[in-house]
Amino acid sequence: MADAHLLESRVGSEEILKGHFLHVFRDTVRLPDGKHATREYVIHPGAVMVVAQLDDGRVVLERQYRYPVQSVMLEFPAGKLDPGEASLACAQRELLEETGYTARQWARAGVLHPVISYSTEFIDIWFARGLTLGERKLDAGEFLDVFTATPTELLDWCGNGRVTDAKTLTGVLWLQNVLSGAWALDWQAATPQ
Amino acid sequence: MADAHLLESRVGSEEILKGHFLHVFRDTVRLPDGKHATREYVIHPGAVMVVAQLDDGRVVLERQYRYPVQSVMLEFPAGKLDPGEASLACAQRELLEETGYTARQWARAGVLHPVISYSTEFIDIWFARGLTLGERKLDAGEFLDVFTATPTELLDWCGNGRVTDAKTLTGVLWLQNVLSGAWALDWQAATPQ
Repeated sequence: MADAHLLESRVGSEEILKGHFLHVFRDTVRLPDGKHATREYVIHPGAVMVVAQLDDGRVVLERQYRYPVQSVMLEFPAGKLDPGEASLACAQRELLEETGYTARQWARAGVLHPVISYSTEFIDIWFARGLTLGERKLDAGEFLDVFTATPTELLDWCGNGRVTDAKTLTGVLWLQNVLSGAWALDWQAATPQ
Repeated sequence: MADAHLLESRVGSEEILKGHFLHVFRDTVRLPDGKHATREYVIHPGAVMVVAQLDDGRVVLERQYRYPVQSVMLEFPAGKLDPGEASLACAQRELLEETGYTARQWARAGVLHPVISYSTEFIDIWFARGLTLGERKLDAGEFLDVFTATPTELLDWCGNGRVTDAKTLTGVLWLQNVLSGAWALDWQAATPQ
């Protein structure tokens, strides 16, 4: 399908917030009908999420308080890319730091965009298997519980409203279709850290 | 599970951006260990998404250019709550405005949180059936295509990377489990507009 009747092109751009964490721009764009509009959005470095599968089929999850939604959320491990960091290296680092697990094998399932209306953020979706538990290394000021669940338990929590985090729900869509055999993964060895 | 070892409590709050669209606060919080940290986040009114099912099983989708990710995205219809607007009223309004469809029956499946690390946004997930096509009423400056797809086609696009919008991927998780009979919906009549 041709897209010209949908596209917006940049006319100008200004930084409107340089916070400690959030970096926000306001761009002026030319709409498909030639008129101008403004688009405000967060610049984000990108992130990874890890669906880590234990040998018995259980997956690794976290419980973490998320201040903007004022709730303890159930989530797959995830974290932001460091400057220049490769996606797989980030996935290996975040899984180890937050949960203590290292994995022998990794597969990149795909990517998700959590908030396409006001952030550039993408989250690469990684699967990990061949897990070994070591010691986690949480960042200062980071507080989270690590636990494991069966895919059936996790699916139940998605259906009954205990899991509402969109990246984790997307990970469960992947998990369900990988386990059924509908979607295939391309496994590779972990890279040296 | 007790949560006291995870909770953060507000110590102070300041508005750091009042844009045309984005409204950002920086709060100071007390961490579980008693130290202080800052949390920057977008205040959002909340939104709805609609999984609209035609009588032949096809679902209603949109193609829309999303400036922050510089791509035409495949999405379920969605939109923000107006001040004081009920969730179902918003779902009926957005479906009609963006696609031209009205639905006789509605079911609230659940809620998702797209970006728990830096926005208060929630998206209520509605299913709609008993569809009638009328005329859509796009807002000024809104450009999007409406089309329909079978659930199988849509699932394929999630698995092969054509669909990467997290709210839509979450809607597909719901659709897949509703269609299989694993998750039940509680249908109700549309409310008068």
